[in-house]
Amino acid sequence: MKAIVFFTLQEAEGAVLQDHTAVVIDVLRASSTIVAALAAGAQSIYPVVSTEEAIKLATLLGREDALLAGERRGLKVEGFDLGNSPREFTPETVGGKRVVMSTTNGTRALVSVAGAERILVASFLNLSAVAVACAGAERLAVVCAGREGRFSIEDAVCAGMLLGRLKERLGGALEVEDAGRAALALAEALVLDDALFEDAAAARALAKIDMLDDVSWCVRLDVEELVPELKERIIQRADGGGA
Amino acid sequence: MKAIVFFTLQEAEGAVLQDHTAVVIDVLRASSTIVAALAAGAQSIYPVVSTEEAIKLATLLGREDALLAGERRGLKVEGFDLGNSPREFTPETVGGKRVVMSTTNGTRALVSVAGAERILVASFLNLSAVAVACAGAERLAVVCAGREGRFSIEDAVCAGMLLGRLKERLGGALEVEDAGRAALALAEALVLDDALFEDAAAARALAKIDMLDDVSWCVRLDVEELVPELKERIIQRADGGGA
Repeated sequence: MKAIVFFTLQEAEGAVLQDHTAVVIDVLRASSTIVAALAAGAQSIYPVVSTEEAIKLATLLGREDALLAGERRGLKVEGFDLGNSPREFTPETVGGKRVVMSTTNGTRALVSVAGAERILVASFLNLSAVAVACAGAERLAVVCAGREGRFSIEDAVCAGMLLGRLKERLGGALEVEDAGRAALALAEALVLDDALFEDAAAARALAKIDMLDDVSWCVRLDVEELVPELKERIIQRADGGGA
Repeated sequence: MKAIVFFTLQEAEGAVLQDHTAVVIDVLRASSTIVAALAAGAQSIYPVVSTEEAIKLATLLGREDALLAGERRGLKVEGFDLGNSPREFTPETVGGKRVVMSTTNGTRALVSVAGAERILVASFLNLSAVAVACAGAERLAVVCAGREGRFSIEDAVCAGMLLGRLKERLGGALEVEDAGRAALALAEALVLDDALFEDAAAARALAKIDMLDDVSWCVRLDVEELVPELKERIIQRADGGGA
């Protein structure tokens, strides 16, 4: 497997990913929230870039079973049913529902890899499941959403840990380039715990809006087996799990 | 000191750096070449983005004492006096001369930080000298040129080692954000030697054009005391060295 890593979605936007399996990571919080939503029984998630697009699509799907979710500056968009805190996505709120979702970086990252052969969503919550699902890919593109065009440490560590899992499975058959090598080294050097990300830019932003609890929620490792997959603009659980 | 790190020049292009000391790093090879040129006695270096601009400026300066240097795809631009291999920049070739320089990533990175209060050029060759020169800055922006809009491991490690030097000097007074923290962790995790970068994308590209020797040349640590500084579009040795 040849694996490339993009530390920001802007880096990925210029790349040709036609023959790649893309794994999108936005630990704080979109990819964690997508995992939470499917784990809570949401039927599907429709990622869109703008809030206007979200409202239009939810209306089209029928507001009785389509929820609007998303944030701007971390806070729930006015008039939306849910924000972007994974803790809001419970069986009570999203069970059986379709969720139209728009976030600042995460949904844009999903759209940026639209040309990929396969698109999976990873977080710490479902890291090993994603590693199993993409282990058969010949070309892998790991796309960190980043934050406002900048490198995010939590996304980079998650990318590095995913590559670490793949390295365990594939050994020398895993080829990485500069960014992948850096991500692997980072993941090996740092210990994943609640404290690791408390100084991260994304965590500081969450602390400011009183949502710091989302950080410890999102750094729980391998608590879900499911792999969200984006197909024809809709995210659902990937079938099977094997690649 | 508050230090921010950009892993690609594209990240830096959007940033407001007015009150920052900017340190530009393009280990393979522009920043190493700039250090080599000044160490070899070049009077000054004029970094420009395009080869057309380079030719125009060299003509304006007078072709008898202004040399044209630069590369595209690693190779010397046709009709130029020098390429971008630091080994070409000797007292015989550049002593007493002005050098107009255009490279793919490095000179563009220098131009991208034009708004900064002070602009210094760092490489492994002059790492400690740069650390001394910028230690007094309140706000530091370390800009890695990267490669074609992507993360470069040699630039990131160099940035991390620079922050490591500053941490030694400043202790807890050095504040870093996500990318700075990652760069520090990388520099601590990896050992700087010839082998470290042989798989780097930039080194592979140099190997293809038979210039792999530039890599071991450029990873020599602290062999020069000088600090190139860009002022009013001209790079010269910084006065004094203290900030």
